[in-house]
Amino acid sequence: MLKPLEDRVVIEMEKAEETTASGIILSTGSQEKPQIAKVIAVGPGKVYDGNLEKMQVKKGDRVIINNYAGTNIKYEGTEYIIVKQDDILAIVE
Amino acid sequence: MLKPLEDRVVIEMEKAEETTASGIILSTGSQEKPQIAKVIAVGPGKVYDGNLEKMQVKKGDRVIINNYAGTNIKYEGTEYIIVKQDDILAIVE
Amino acid sequence: MLKPLEDRVVIEMEKAEETTASGIILSTGSQEKPQIAKVIAVGPGKVYDGNLEKMQVKKGDRVIINNYAGTNIKYEGTEYIIVKQDDILAIVE
Amino acid sequence: MLKPLEDRVVIEMEKAEETTASGIILSTGSQEKPQIAKVIAVGPGKVYDGNLEKMQVKKGDRVIINNYAGTNIKYEGTEYIIVKQDDILAIVE
Amino acid sequence: MLKPLEDRVVIEMEKAEETTASGIILSTGSQEKPQIAKVIAVGPGKVYDGNLEKMQVKKGDRVIINNYAGTNIKYEGTEYIIVKQDDILAIVE
Amino acid sequence: MLKPLEDRVVIEMEKAEETTASGIILSTGSQEKPQIAKVIAVGPGKVYDGNLEKMQVKKGDRVIINNYAGTNIKYEGTEYIIVKQDDILAIVE
Amino acid sequence: MLKPLEDRVVIEMEKAEETTASGIILSTGSQEKPQIAKVIAVGPGKVYDGNLEKMQVKKGDRVIINNYAGTNIKYEGTEYIIVKQDDILAIVE
Repeated sequence: MLKPLEDRVVIEMEKAEETTASGIILSTGSQEKPQIAKVIAVGPGKVYDGNLEKMQVKKGDRVIINNYAGTNIKYEGTEYIIVKQDDILAIVE
Repeated sequence: MLKPLEDRVVIEMEKAEETTASGIILSTGSQEKPQIAKVIAVGPGKVYDGNLEKMQVKKGDRVIINNYAGTNIKYEGTEYIIVKQDDILAIVE
Repeated sequence: MLKPLEDRVVIEMEKAEETTASGIILSTGSQEKPQIAKVIAVGPGKVYDGNLEKMQVKKGDRVIINNYAGTNIKYEGTEYIIVKQDDILAIVE
Repeated sequence: MLKPLEDRVVIEMEKAEETTASGIILSTGSQEKPQIAKVIAVGPGKVYDGNLEKMQVKKGDRVIINNYAGTNIKYEGTEYIIVKQDDILAIVE
Repeated sequence: MLKPLEDRVVIEMEKAEETTASGIILSTGSQEKPQIAKVIAVGPGKVYDGNLEKMQVKKGDRVIINNYAGTNIKYEGTEYIIVKQDDILAIVE
Repeated sequence: MLKPLEDRVVIEMEKAEETTASGIILSTGSQEKPQIAKVIAVGPGKVYDGNLEKMQVKKGDRVIINNYAGTNIKYEGTEYIIVKQDDILAIVE
Repeated sequence: MLKPLEDRVVIEMEKAEETTASGIILSTGSQEKPQIAKVIAVGPGKVYDGNLEKMQVKKGDRVIINNYAGTNIKYEGTEYIIVKQDDILAIVE
């Protein structure tokens, strides 16, 4: 299991097909990587001045992330990206 | 539905024709993208030192944004941009 | 009407002729754009640590701004620039 | 013995073979260096405004680090990397 | 009259001849612009955390400024430079 | 005697031969300069918000420093480097 | 007289010959400028959050400075450099 530190979030990108089915397509052309992802694991939050700042996303959320954000890893055969919460722009409901 | 995080705002650019009709034209030439947009969704605001900073724009506002600000997405057939509130320069009333 | 957010200010550049008449000429040559402008609209001020920082310019002030500061827009046939107050160097009285 | 200062952490990269066996493979291709490492020593934590910020990793943890983070050293025949805790993205459990 | 905002200062460069007469010559060669100036107008000071930080120079002071600091303007036939107080290195007494 | 200011530390690099003898060799090749040094003098510490932040290294410590950190000087025939404590990664015990 | 502002310090470089006599030679070669200087004048110190931070060097101290730090001036026939105290690495006693 991947346990992100601080305000980091483990996400898994949706496949391009799923993205189309859900009615969300990235406007910048088919060459760019999809921006919609599912949240897999959420860190405990960042501490500022001794206070924990609560996370605003939770496991299972579908989110839109900044292009090129985060670090790619492969874990038990699946590709994930670890991003900071600040790279998550919006939740799709 | 798109729910922006923190101080982010989902906007939809007005069409160039609408912009002309409303009497607002960008001075930097017709090649540049329009800067006037309608606010579609507003985040809850950013937390600084444990205090929530209230948002200054609301759904339905017509706003002027910085050129090149934000991330483009397409959702249910419509193109949106997600910007930080700090990229909104003024409200048009 | 343009309502600037935070510590932003809407200004209108004085015409080069007016500038000469008032006895103020920019020293860096006639190719550069004039730096003297009239304040058209003033934002409410920026909030730091929960305290509103009062604006130091008001509608009608004639001001000197940094070169290249701000964003140009055209509104109801007039060209304006939206700058941050920090780009205003001095008031001309 | 290596005693890292502040929020630094001494890690030892896992061999590429071990990484494959554990089911974790970096997605960016076999040319890049592995990102999975074992924590060997942990600093006391960083002090902010007079308060010690507790470390979130401990000796023995397996962690994922940012590519290119840290400084390589060789100590008693073993290669280590000294990173800041902020370069550790997640703990693998 | 020019009223600088915040911690800005309006200065007028001394002529190269005056500079020589006073026994102060810039060491970096005669091609560089003189660094000695007379203070013409002083802003009210900058506000940090709600406290006004008092200005350390006053009208009439002769000061040494950083090369290339500030913005040049011409006002009623005289050339001035508007600098931040932080660009003033020392007072010449 | 050299008395470093604030959080600075005067160090003397160990000779490459000594380094090998102690079992510590830098992994990045023999062309790079050694990273192991002995602490010769320690500053009083840095003051943040009126509080002195105590130094974490002391005279005589053997330390690992960042490559290329600090300023080289020669004093009474010996070469030293003056670094900030933040450039010291770990203490070797 | 030169009165530096804030945490600035007026220094006069020692001549290369003096430097050799005192047993201090810069290790980076004879082409580089000497780093040892005598303190001529000291500013009142910088104010942080309303508190004056006392200066750690005094007139007459011999100090080691960062290469390339500061601004050169010539005053009554002597060359000086105005540096920030933070560019002073150590006091030579």
